Amino acid sequence: MDSLKIGIAGVGTVGTCVVVKLLGGAVKDTTITRLAARDINKDRGFKMPESQWTQNALDLADEDDVDVLVELIGGADGTALDLVRAALANKKHIVTANKALLAKHGVELAELAEKNNCILKYEAAVAGGIPVIKALSEGLAANNIFRINGILNGTCNFILTEMETKGAGYEETLSIAQELGYAEDDPTFDVEGIDAAQKLSLLSAIAFGQKPNENDVLTRGISDVAAIDFEFAKGFEAVIRLIARAEKKIKSESSSASISGTSGEVVQVVEPCLVRKTSVLSGISGVTNAVQFETDMVDVILQGPGAGGEATASAVLADIADLSQFMKSGMRVTPHVFGRSVSELVASQSETEVMPSQWYIRLNLKDAPGSMAKVTSILAEHDVSIEEAVQRGPQNGEDHRPVVFITHKCEKSAIKNALVALEAIDVIAKDVNYMPVI
Amino acid sequence: MDSLKIGIAGVGTVGTCVVVKLLGGAVKDTTITRLAARDINKDRGFKMPESQWTQNALDLADEDDVDVLVELIGGADGTALDLVRAALANKKHIVTANKALLAKHGVELAELAEKNNCILKYEAAVAGGIPVIKALSEGLAANNIFRINGILNGTCNFILTEMETKGAGYEETLSIAQELGYAEDDPTFDVEGIDAAQKLSLLSAIAFGQKPNENDVLTRGISDVAAIDFEFAKGFEAVIRLIARAEKKIKSESSSASISGTSGEVVQVVEPCLVRKTSVLSGISGVTNAVQFETDMVDVILQGPGAGGEATASAVLADIADLSQFMKSGMRVTPHVFGRSVSELVASQSETEVMPSQWYIRLNLKDAPGSMAKVTSILAEHDVSIEEAVQRGPQNGEDHRPVVFITHKCEKSAIKNALVALEAIDVIAKDVNYMPVI
Ligand SMILES: NC(=O)c1ccc[n+]([C@@H]2O[C@H](COP(=O)([O-])OP(=O)(O)OC[C@H]3O[C@@H](n4cnc5c(N)ncnc54)[C@H](OP(=O)(O)O)[C@@H]3O)[C@@H](O)[C@H]2O)c1
Ligand SMILES: NC(=O)c1ccc[n+]([C@@H]2O[C@H](COP(=O)([O-])OP(=O)(O)OC[C@H]3O[C@@H](n4cnc5c(N)ncnc54)[C@H](OP(=O)(O)O)[C@@H]3O)[C@@H](O)[C@H]2O)c1
Repeated sequence: MDSLKIGIAGVGTVGTCVVVKLLGGAVKDTTITRLAARDINKDRGFKMPESQWTQNALDLADEDDVDVLVELIGGADGTALDLVRAALANKKHIVTANKALLAKHGVELAELAEKNNCILKYEAAVAGGIPVIKALSEGLAANNIFRINGILNGTCNFILTEMETKGAGYEETLSIAQELGYAEDDPTFDVEGIDAAQKLSLLSAIAFGQKPNENDVLTRGISDVAAIDFEFAKGFEAVIRLIARAEKKIKSESSSASISGTSGEVVQVVEPCLVRKTSVLSGISGVTNAVQFETDMVDVILQGPGAGGEATASAVLADIADLSQFMKSGMRVTPHVFGRSVSELVASQSETEVMPSQWYIRLNLKDAPGSMAKVTSILAEHDVSIEEAVQRGPQNGEDHRPVVFITHKCEKSAIKNALVALEAIDVIAKDVNYMPVI
Repeated sequence: MDSLKIGIAGVGTVGTCVVVKLLGGAVKDTTITRLAARDINKDRGFKMPESQWTQNALDLADEDDVDVLVELIGGADGTALDLVRAALANKKHIVTANKALLAKHGVELAELAEKNNCILKYEAAVAGGIPVIKALSEGLAANNIFRINGILNGTCNFILTEMETKGAGYEETLSIAQELGYAEDDPTFDVEGIDAAQKLSLLSAIAFGQKPNENDVLTRGISDVAAIDFEFAKGFEAVIRLIARAEKKIKSESSSASISGTSGEVVQVVEPCLVRKTSVLSGISGVTNAVQFETDMVDVILQGPGAGGEATASAVLADIADLSQFMKSGMRVTPHVFGRSVSELVASQSETEVMPSQWYIRLNLKDAPGSMAKVTSILAEHDVSIEEAVQRGPQNGEDHRPVVFITHKCEKSAIKNALVALEAIDVIAKDVNYMPVI
């Protein structure tokens, strides 16, 4: 049996671990033939012949001694995109950890892969070292997926659990995360939920047969979550997590006009949620990731490290091992990138409505007679009915004080309309927050 | 592309769900061609032509219209064994949920499969609907597995969590479990840890390259766990779970004679453990199963339903889907049953020593001067040093009272020897329990 010839483009945090493990024999019958990085003279802690290195990653796309291109450069466009396109055109199989690339160009690349009878694998692109792509696409191959709930961004989860345990504010906790290396200098990509949205779009494509597209995910980051929200959450026996959810909208039984959505539409949302302690996801702390699949036959949860060189390398290497096994088997028909042929994937509608849920609403209410009555009547006018309300005493002479409502199940649009109306009246100060309760 | 022809032997709890889902199109390009059950006239809620039914399951082993035999009869020997042997000899692929069969005859059947270039899949045999076999053998293909910790028996986990929340005793909780259908009339197989041991032996084979053999698992059931153990556990911020563990013994750094085991030996144990709340496994309640894989690159945990018709069918169907995909790809080389060729599997030594750990020891101590001193000196003589001790006041005039020790890390043999010595002195009454702390 011939050895699988592997070209690795990008030898940074993840790539270095992949190389070291492959050199150590982690995947049988494989040989690293080519390596690409920007600086080919950097000491990376391992030795490979100089002749195998190149600064021009695109070289790897047309070398005869590359069967599989492992793309670990990163970025939605630029070199990573050019390289993967060129390699597929030259009938090379791809392994990548690049969620940004696939959430933007996944459909085009899957088409190219199909046309060239190539395999494109990306286990490491979602939830790092946890084999969630495999669990979903193969382990739950026969299941009808109802809903996916995920904690897909370690940076946000770290910040939120730190705020929870330390009682600290968002900005100061972000700084700590940056000092510890858990957040980038420019944290936008993580804290605004973009990274989680990219990952969700890939899971959602496999689960629901949609064209992956990060722009179809309604995304709201964690920067509005305040220390006080954790205090209130505690009182409700809940925590706050950035949850990535995708679900099929079920045609409503009732004919109520307030319930929208037709059968089969898929909603994808990333937003901070109030997660009750009864949910396993409430127990996921720090940089850990977790994904829950709710299906017609089982409900399973996987958890583990969502990032880090070794964890991510574990997933990359599993993809390489799969490819090796698959090529040994004959490769007459290659598996589809998103679980079905691209021609069968449907464009996902940009849904504006998520499924109805209970909501947590925090307002800053003027400490004056009648202000509570004004608020509750506006909520009622918008069909938002209240299950629980908690008001805190005014603190050090402030003339506003926080009040929190947990609503009965209702549409997000109702909440948003009510909030607009509320912000227009003079009894509410700035600094409002709302989250679904799960 | 030809449809995969499926013969199903056993149409009970699991088989019926598999049939219904296949008829509903859960796995593309498959056709049920043959069905076997004892009573072929029973109404099972679906319709299949009479001609496809047989009472003689062995018929399915040599029908031309069967590519894949799905064995869902159960039992380590008898019809299930005869059938799988005959089907493999006739070059039929196998999907089974039968842990008892594989934990006893796995090596022989894997050899037969290899010889006949057949695939034998058994995702449903371990942890029901959770894709743990796939996660371990493919998702962690490149990893070096250090340890597996599992909650693999829903019956035991249900009983233990009921005892924990209700404060009830073992016998009375077992009766409740039996009434609810969570325990069999003869519960031995579950409560004595045999079922968990069978499953562990399969995971251990894949993880560590051993010949699976349930007899190599040191097994102790849950019948010695008493209500009072949960009270003490609570004080230590812990719960009690039946944990199935397999780990590689690492050659000890120190030369201390009390540390045994040479590098590379694998220990497999099923026993009740004191699980600290810091472990994810402490949060697994009721009939849920969970498996944790600790490896060189990642530490991942999967949880979900370990039994039930639909959950188990989900795993059976995933195996069928895999087979279908694999056969489309060409099938030049079939994957090995336990991750490597049978010739590479090593016989696992029946280890008598587990890795050293902390221990929970509960004694029933005579309420007399000097009795505590006697006990602690015997423990010290056996190199068992105490980290924490808790003694409860004597209750309603009893002359014995429970005392619990948490030891420092030590060998199980030291604990067992100390217990033998302790039981020989007159200050200890019957009803002693001990568990490792994890
Ligand atoms: N790090 C994680 O925890 C993690 C987790 C999940 C997924 N991922 C994904 O894995 C991928 C790699 O991430 P990483 O953290 O390993 O990134 P990294 O540490 O920044 O490494 C990037 C590598 O690409 C090389 N490179 C950059 N531009 C290049 C170019 N134009 N031509 C050739 N080589 C070029 C760099 O070369 P030099 O070394 O010479 O600069 C470096 O070796 C990304 O898609 C990322 O999203 C990472
Ligand atoms: N149930 C679970 O939750 C679960 C979970 C994991 C794994 N499993 C495994 O799945 C397998 C099946 O379990 P199950 O719960 O579905 O068992 P079950 O409900 O008892 O069904 C057994 C089936 O086998 C048939 N059968 C028995 N002896 C036969 C014979 N000699 N010839 C032909 N058919 C025969 C029975 O026929 P009749 O219906 O006519 O009696 C019945 O249809 C077992 O290996 C079990 O360990 C089960």
